Amino acid sequence: MKRYLMTPGPTPVAPETQLAMAQPILHHRSPQFMEILGKVREDLRYLFQTEQEVLMFAATGTGAMEGAVVNTLCAGDTALVVDGGKFGERWTELCQVYGVKVDRIAVEWGRAVNPAEVAARLKANPAIKAVFVQANETSTGVQHPVRELAQITKSLPGAILVVDAISALGGYELPMDGWGLDIVVAGSQKAMMLPPGLAFAALSPKAWEFVKTSTLPKYYFDFAKQLKSQQKNQTAYTSAVTLTMGLMEVCARIRAEGLEKIFARNRRLSLATKEAVRAMGLELYAKDYPSDVLTAVLAPAGVDGQKVVANLRRKGIWIAGGQAQAKGKIFRIAHMGFIDETDLLGTIGGLEVVLNELGYKVDLGVGVKAAQAVLGKEAGA
Amino acid sequence: MKRYLMTPGPTPVAPETQLAMAQPILHHRSPQFMEILGKVREDLRYLFQTEQEVLMFAATGTGAMEGAVVNTLCAGDTALVVDGGKFGERWTELCQVYGVKVDRIAVEWGRAVNPAEVAARLKANPAIKAVFVQANETSTGVQHPVRELAQITKSLPGAILVVDAISALGGYELPMDGWGLDIVVAGSQKAMMLPPGLAFAALSPKAWEFVKTSTLPKYYFDFAKQLKSQQKNQTAYTSAVTLTMGLMEVCARIRAEGLEKIFARNRRLSLATKEAVRAMGLELYAKDYPSDVLTAVLAPAGVDGQKVVANLRRKGIWIAGGQAQAKGKIFRIAHMGFIDETDLLGTIGGLEVVLNELGYKVDLGVGVKAAQAVLGKEAGA
Repeated sequence: MKRYLMTPGPTPVAPETQLAMAQPILHHRSPQFMEILGKVREDLRYLFQTEQEVLMFAATGTGAMEGAVVNTLCAGDTALVVDGGKFGERWTELCQVYGVKVDRIAVEWGRAVNPAEVAARLKANPAIKAVFVQANETSTGVQHPVRELAQITKSLPGAILVVDAISALGGYELPMDGWGLDIVVAGSQKAMMLPPGLAFAALSPKAWEFVKTSTLPKYYFDFAKQLKSQQKNQTAYTSAVTLTMGLMEVCARIRAEGLEKIFARNRRLSLATKEAVRAMGLELYAKDYPSDVLTAVLAPAGVDGQKVVANLRRKGIWIAGGQAQAKGKIFRIAHMGFIDETDLLGTIGGLEVVLNELGYKVDLGVGVKAAQAVLGKEAGA
Repeated sequence: MKRYLMTPGPTPVAPETQLAMAQPILHHRSPQFMEILGKVREDLRYLFQTEQEVLMFAATGTGAMEGAVVNTLCAGDTALVVDGGKFGERWTELCQVYGVKVDRIAVEWGRAVNPAEVAARLKANPAIKAVFVQANETSTGVQHPVRELAQITKSLPGAILVVDAISALGGYELPMDGWGLDIVVAGSQKAMMLPPGLAFAALSPKAWEFVKTSTLPKYYFDFAKQLKSQQKNQTAYTSAVTLTMGLMEVCARIRAEGLEKIFARNRRLSLATKEAVRAMGLELYAKDYPSDVLTAVLAPAGVDGQKVVANLRRKGIWIAGGQAQAKGKIFRIAHMGFIDETDLLGTIGGLEVVLNELGYKVDLGVGVKAAQAVLGKEAGA
């Protein structure tokens, strides 16, 4: 059965990338591989929209999130955590494991954080050394306004803004240097169109200053050590060679298309999905800033969101269900990476059929038509 | 140019494995992938020769080494580290980063640790909670006598034996349960014939008791959390999907051949290499227990070991040079994983030519002949 991975990671891997990764393995200290690392280092700067070095780790995104904590803070420090979903919770857990005190902003799931609240908390507690947030909260389909948050932290010499962009980077506009984000963490298996297994982190000069005074223990995710190695076109420990070869291929295609075009395409797919959902009489789960890279939809009354997911899987279409408190209540359709209009129209068509199967009446074609209208208009615009 | 990776990691990846990893990507929470994880969990038990769960991480081996420290010890604990090469040093660094006091046995490079010294140190300092050692010290080509070390630690309720088997596991006999090793750490890119990017750790019931009392901070490499996930055929964080698909394929081939045959083959290749080296008038770097999976050779007087490596590379043959204090003095030929007699004879033939190029006179064919004699005899035995 054909498989359509419309999940917010892993996303589909292009055949070209699969071929790149199926090449004979290179030694990680060979000139050939070092040349690849050199190219990839440049490409990652483009992707992160930064002049800083983008650190690469053989790990998944959570590893780089842990790195962001242990490389910048000390035990007893205070961090402000924006917790508006499953991945916000992870920042809290990470800080607590390392003895970092957490001032937590509990954001209702489906809502974005209010920058004014972040500003107020920072003002009330000048001891806060870092603000941890998701760019795109994958569990709710909400984009937190990190640009506005950076406006606040930029003016505070004692606090950095740490952004989990695992499901955002490469998916929509997130210029690290332009917006003044201090740490941006990413993973390979979302908009970067690779299998899981590579994690990334880039640091602003301000964040690198925090690294100098950080006393939390670190080894595998030691940012300073990794920076030093990368400057010699190496990694501190053995590189994930095949994934890095895939990364070079992916980056070349991303640069050839250009970030602007990719962001516009994802946005068009996102708008089309959201219009389709509305045409079917359904509501978005995100009440603020619905994400450009995934659409979280409230399951209609009487329909279990998990069943929507299960029934679509029988057609080879993989979307995601809700997590934790949203389980059963929502389903999530991703539209980033190696996904096009045809995949999306097929998915919406399948969704219409499945909703009818589950007792929620939808006129067949109504969602597809709404999506087509957006796609036609936007493409011609 | 064809490439012969006779390096101690990464080792060559078989075309069958490359194809397995080039399959369309699976979602890491899909029933299909969970079935793969279930199979792989069983296969890893076979490979580690243990009834315990073998934990899998998207990382390279160093990550699992860090995990072995942070999951079993507390700050202020004392560890005994056997430091007889580049990777022994890593245990010391890891312990020190986490505030674990290190009682270090400095073993001369090229030598194996004397179990009597380990016993004496443990007796002199009953506070020692863990003994850290390499099964195979990749930088020197020496196998430390971990079986004998386990005899000592088994009788001590308060101390565990932690074995870095990154370059050993799957290469030669190392039965975790049979010998009573408490933690065995491995990596994907050596005898396991995969690209780098997966790290493994298995713990004895005694080691799991240490996990209960350990207070060092951990998150990405949290063993208890990973165990709980694996028991549901999941990983705690996103799985390295493609590498795990490759792992399933590799494990199937390993089980089909059988560990005994693989170990015998590596031993035969090892003996052939060592006889070839002697026939060329060269000396092994390892004075004790030369490794079954790699042969470290002293460069002859007046010949730079790095030049031997460089000249062989021009023929497409990749061996390794010396590291740190052994740089220039030695070169290292690995013979594990997807490497056969033909690769080895070609490598030895190339080495003869290169040594002559560098001014060390060797009768052409003398090393190859010595290797052939061993291979013929052993195969017929």
